[in-house]
Amino acid sequence: MFDHRKYKAFEPIHLTDRTWPDNTLTQAPDWCSVDLRDGNQALVNPMSVEQKTRLFDLLVKLGFKEIEVGFPSASKPDFDFVRKLVDEQRIPDDVTIQVLTQAREELIKRTYEAMAGVKKAVIHVYNSTSTVQREQVFGQSREGIKAIAVQGAQWVQQYAEQHPDTQWSFQYSPESFSGTEMDYAIEVCDAVIEQWQPKSGRDIIINLPATVEMSTPNRFADQVEYFCRHLVNRPYVRISLHTHNDRGCAVAAAELGVLAGADRVEGTLMGNGERTGNMDVITMGMNLYSQGIDPKLDFSNIMEINEVVESCTEIPVGVRHPWAGELVYTAFSGSHQDAIRKSVNYHSEHNKQHWDVAYLPIDPRDIGREYEEIVRINSQSGKGGVALVLERDYAINLPKWMHTSLSTVVQSAAEESGVEVSPSNIKRLFDEHFIAVPTQWQLDDYDLHTDEHHVSARFRIGDQSFNGEGAGALEALCSALTTAFHCSIEVVQFDQHAISGGTDAKAQASIAVKINGEAYFAVAVAGDTSAATLQAMLTAFSRTGLEAVQAA
Amino acid sequence: MFDHRKYKAFEPIHLTDRTWPDNTLTQAPDWCSVDLRDGNQALVNPMSVEQKTRLFDLLVKLGFKEIEVGFPSASKPDFDFVRKLVDEQRIPDDVTIQVLTQAREELIKRTYEAMAGVKKAVIHVYNSTSTVQREQVFGQSREGIKAIAVQGAQWVQQYAEQHPDTQWSFQYSPESFSGTEMDYAIEVCDAVIEQWQPKSGRDIIINLPATVEMSTPNRFADQVEYFCRHLVNRPYVRISLHTHNDRGCAVAAAELGVLAGADRVEGTLMGNGERTGNMDVITMGMNLYSQGIDPKLDFSNIMEINEVVESCTEIPVGVRHPWAGELVYTAFSGSHQDAIRKSVNYHSEHNKQHWDVAYLPIDPRDIGREYEEIVRINSQSGKGGVALVLERDYAINLPKWMHTSLSTVVQSAAEESGVEVSPSNIKRLFDEHFIAVPTQWQLDDYDLHTDEHHVSARFRIGDQSFNGEGAGALEALCSALTTAFHCSIEVVQFDQHAISGGTDAKAQASIAVKINGEAYFAVAVAGDTSAATLQAMLTAFSRTGLEAVQAA
Repeated sequence: MFDHRKYKAFEPIHLTDRTWPDNTLTQAPDWCSVDLRDGNQALVNPMSVEQKTRLFDLLVKLGFKEIEVGFPSASKPDFDFVRKLVDEQRIPDDVTIQVLTQAREELIKRTYEAMAGVKKAVIHVYNSTSTVQREQVFGQSREGIKAIAVQGAQWVQQYAEQHPDTQWSFQYSPESFSGTEMDYAIEVCDAVIEQWQPKSGRDIIINLPATVEMSTPNRFADQVEYFCRHLVNRPYVRISLHTHNDRGCAVAAAELGVLAGADRVEGTLMGNGERTGNMDVITMGMNLYSQGIDPKLDFSNIMEINEVVESCTEIPVGVRHPWAGELVYTAFSGSHQDAIRKSVNYHSEHNKQHWDVAYLPIDPRDIGREYEEIVRINSQSGKGGVALVLERDYAINLPKWMHTSLSTVVQSAAEESGVEVSPSNIKRLFDEHFIAVPTQWQLDDYDLHTDEHHVSARFRIGDQSFNGEGAGALEALCSALTTAFHCSIEVVQFDQHAISGGTDAKAQASIAVKINGEAYFAVAVAGDTSAATLQAMLTAFSRTGLEAVQAA
Repeated sequence: MFDHRKYKAFEPIHLTDRTWPDNTLTQAPDWCSVDLRDGNQALVNPMSVEQKTRLFDLLVKLGFKEIEVGFPSASKPDFDFVRKLVDEQRIPDDVTIQVLTQAREELIKRTYEAMAGVKKAVIHVYNSTSTVQREQVFGQSREGIKAIAVQGAQWVQQYAEQHPDTQWSFQYSPESFSGTEMDYAIEVCDAVIEQWQPKSGRDIIINLPATVEMSTPNRFADQVEYFCRHLVNRPYVRISLHTHNDRGCAVAAAELGVLAGADRVEGTLMGNGERTGNMDVITMGMNLYSQGIDPKLDFSNIMEINEVVESCTEIPVGVRHPWAGELVYTAFSGSHQDAIRKSVNYHSEHNKQHWDVAYLPIDPRDIGREYEEIVRINSQSGKGGVALVLERDYAINLPKWMHTSLSTVVQSAAEESGVEVSPSNIKRLFDEHFIAVPTQWQLDDYDLHTDEHHVSARFRIGDQSFNGEGAGALEALCSALTTAFHCSIEVVQFDQHAISGGTDAKAQASIAVKINGEAYFAVAVAGDTSAATLQAMLTAFSRTGLEAVQAA
């Protein structure tokens, strides 16, 4: 059954002097949303009037100026919805609605009935032109199929004349364009355009559907360039693209097709549509945005878009959906986390003009997403990531030399549980391993006597007292402990900083010490800097399990 | 906040003499699955050993010959899993496992500890080479970054020498390749390859990651072609691609990159991976398959793949996922359904060599999907679709002239409920409207007397008897009813065919009649053809609500 020999390769056109690969996208195409038509027709449960209205309002809010709202001659709900839009005057003046119809007179007549009274609209007529459809589905010659198109165009024009108060645009799709011989597609389209009097100034759109995606996107772009170069009436029409995602390349095909000369792109939010779906306007729009190009659509509230689309289509937005998915601003890998952290810092330090952060193609806040979502911790995360969570969620800044120690603790926990470690669990692990201190190791009180840079001190810790001397308070404590516990103590690293401003400033001290050659890390917070330092030392010391051989 | 001016455009290389757009894919690249590394590291809950083992076994079964199984020096679970694969001899002889490591000695050392005893393997070492990473993350010069790469390559080689019984392949990735200046990327890679003695015959792979997708896929292809053309050691290495999906074009980028000269593609099943995910191997593989190219992977059981991937990643396969999604072999649109039907029939009638069916890029049965899933009926469906469901699911063939009548009934039901009409509901509606007949209109018995092509008949129907005469049985029944009910009857259409073979053959009769000018449709099944015809007539007649003015 699984036998590739049942299929034959796509027959590409031979366009060796193509120019599109040298072009660069510099502006957004005209967008046309087909969410309410192609999107709606491919749902298990088509949208209710309420859902359609909600989606229409969202599309308007996002900035779509052309919206295909249905196939009113084929479906009563579509008919009713179009009438509702018109009758309730729900269409803003700068928005043009569009409706689809086959090239049959009774359907075209019915289409105009649905649209009567609208201020401006696109009548979108189509018929299938591909070899497969001509031979297998319609049993028609090239001439026959072309005649259907031209006859349809004529009806579209005739019925339009009965509604002179509306500003009508005409659109024709050679359906299954990408499976049609290019010269024939051009012949049909030129004939349709001729019927519509191209020089009359009327807005005419020729829409080129990749009804089924049939080739790599560069071959589609070749078709578009060839079409645009050979269409006699090219100067009088807008060329539109309507790609589908059968090979997972609908966005690529539209992008390369615009490079190849198209002016306009039809698509849907999140790529909803027949089978694998239509071109996703959000992806293509955000792709432009991330290149510094105005997408002419406002995706600043992506969460709202997700919510409306999900509730209207009953299809969840995938967690990895480009730009919109739950996980796309999340970095799990430690090296990614480190890089993001450094890169974000570099940006603020260097006041960089353009966003250029490793692993984050845009600033998620632009579209209402948050940095909070960037770092999650699992057994693959590196030290920077764990420290970042403490910094981000708990405003705890740790010196770099503590990151490894902390991440070892968190990584062990992650490996043990096999699941992600939440920020609150990271905080808990941090407290448990670095902050928590048994009562008998809490610094209750201390007296310092300073004389010519020499300190004599008495420390009351738990229910014990210790005396010590040294160049400073910490040295005095070390000497006291060394004596009392018969051990060696070496302070390896030490860091202290204020953690709140004003009169109630607190200090956080972090320490790395070697006690009898073994490394211990601890952190303490206290109202004065000396106390924080001393407590950090005592907390680290408490981890040794040593027992006093001599108390003072 | 939503301001495109924060971003700058990708700086493309200028390759005006590119050759890749004229190339055509003619064979599958070497595939490397990174499901267990890049895929796993991007999961909210990383896979357990059991899940990893299950996924590994699936990858082997699908035919992957190179599988990246982890980052053992960075994660203990990865280390343990690699050891399990090696120690339990779970790796078939024709499969090469691959592991990732940073270019640091202690990590490379640990990597070889994880791999000790493996028969053959790829050691995959990487460091970041892009402008952003050099400047913002590593604070290193070009020379410094290159030195890290070469030093890493040297360690990889040195530690390999300690395991002479293993057949080692070496792979180097200039991470964030697509954000790296091409000449610099080439310089670094050539230096790494030199370190590995390219002419020694060792398998060397240079992997080019689009760590973050940064441009339209044609620009990535330009980079790949430029890289391949200028790499001094090109003849001695395999060029691999590792694309990500940030712009939704990971598959396109890989396809065009192969056109541009790459030999090998890394990706994952369903495109799982960091952020928007990696290149989806299923999509690219099935794209090749649908063009008559052996994908060298076996996707014949797509449902099993979906199930394993979903259970291992805890990410559902989207309903519109190319080739694999629940809805991708479903046509809702009536015109699509008609076309599919005609096209499938055309294929069987013409015994076509190659699959070329409208709207269905492949035969879904190739991958274990079913035609059953193709047609669902909602208010947008056409008449062909509804008839197809009856034919497909209930072996009920209706003549074409009944399709409209049936679809009107179904469409009304769909519009009323607003949801999809299931096949069983279509059958119920069909039975109710066209088959069901009140007891008083059931044909109990009949006597026919034929004399010189003239029929005299007596019909016992319910508790009544009717006499009639005519050229045949149906005509006799019509004359009987006309007389008894004072009405006009015109048989507009009539169709009858056997619906089962052998001795218990049954006949199905369909009829369209005009009674007093109104059209009625009915269908009846009976053990003999006369009875079926007569019952169909009576069933249609029962819908009129006429009452007899004269019984015989």
